Amino acid sequence: MNKRGVLTVISGPSGVGKGTVINRLFEIEDNLYFSVSATTRKPRPGEIDGVHYSFKTREEFEHDIETGEMLEYAVFNGNYYGTPKSAVEQRLSEGKDVVLDIEIQGARNVKKMMPEAALIYLLPPSIEELKRRLVGRNTEDAETVAGRLHTARIELNEAPELYDYFIVNDLVENAAIKIKDIIEGERCSKSAMQEVLKQILEEAENLA
Amino acid sequence: MNKRGVLTVISGPSGVGKGTVINRLFEIEDNLYFSVSATTRKPRPGEIDGVHYSFKTREEFEHDIETGEMLEYAVFNGNYYGTPKSAVEQRLSEGKDVVLDIEIQGARNVKKMMPEAALIYLLPPSIEELKRRLVGRNTEDAETVAGRLHTARIELNEAPELYDYFIVNDLVENAAIKIKDIIEGERCSKSAMQEVLKQILEEAENLA
Repeated sequence: MNKRGVLTVISGPSGVGKGTVINRLFEIEDNLYFSVSATTRKPRPGEIDGVHYSFKTREEFEHDIETGEMLEYAVFNGNYYGTPKSAVEQRLSEGKDVVLDIEIQGARNVKKMMPEAALIYLLPPSIEELKRRLVGRNTEDAETVAGRLHTARIELNEAPELYDYFIVNDLVENAAIKIKDIIEGERCSKSAMQEVLKQILEEAENLA
Repeated sequence: MNKRGVLTVISGPSGVGKGTVINRLFEIEDNLYFSVSATTRKPRPGEIDGVHYSFKTREEFEHDIETGEMLEYAVFNGNYYGTPKSAVEQRLSEGKDVVLDIEIQGARNVKKMMPEAALIYLLPPSIEELKRRLVGRNTEDAETVAGRLHTARIELNEAPELYDYFIVNDLVENAAIKIKDIIEGERCSKSAMQEVLKQILEEAENLA
């Protein structure tokens, strides 16, 4: 019986440790696919088209936005970054589970275009701890840290409306396991099981 | 941080093997509470009030229905059977996870009264297999088996609208683990995490 893959979106405020959690998730769960983003930024030395990014011209990218081929996109430093829908859709229809690491605005678009997506938001154990983690990076000045905290507060107020799941990132291992649990559970969701359901309903129909 | 428990409803057609799966679930997962049903049936020798059933008079039970204290109820052989809401609510507010083993009509009522409940429907691998399992019991005549299959078909058509999760009971162990996964995932759901979210939003508010 064919099962559709699960689409999972992972977001969280800057400094929550999302990258580390996602890396650990991919270590403990083999069968996950990380979506390759599209961008209009020029490839850096060593970057391979289709592996690190799908490199596109501005015209190609804007065409993809217009035709609804971008599940979500954003602009950083004058370049587009986005998630191509067709690649995600192909994995899902093959029964593979896809993980997207995107910001809250992108998550909102994904939910609009693919309502069956499971949206996970990573929380810091406390705002104080988030501040400590941002300061501990030593890569940002006080003003940048204050700005990131401000953004985090705005995001935290918007997140409960949008996201389906919330995980406190107290320990990387625990948080990664919880994401794994959520994906396992979602594999039994109505949308993932729709083909299986259809088959058994057809069988019931024919026997009646 | 206080977490609210998860309420899980498990249903499935007669013959799907629900009882065996639930027994296995309680073996592999310690922290689950099975709701004690209320009934107006007389206690049998050895049955303890509050353990096997919460025994009630017809007047008490009907009063509980009127006041909304019965999450769901049904009548078998002239006796009421139902799930008292206050006992379930108490466990959940203590952060304990509760499992209800009820029929589709009961599940509908629970969803109405507690929309955050996770509704799981067990599927047979096929209708043919369901028939084999019903016949294999050797406890029912052909007419009863045909009647149960007929009911199963009606239920299977209603289930996709109502239930959140679908599990094919191919192997008892697999099905029990999938229920466990769903419960683990639901522990991170918005409703289970509402207190945690509230606390961190308050902290963010106070720091702003």
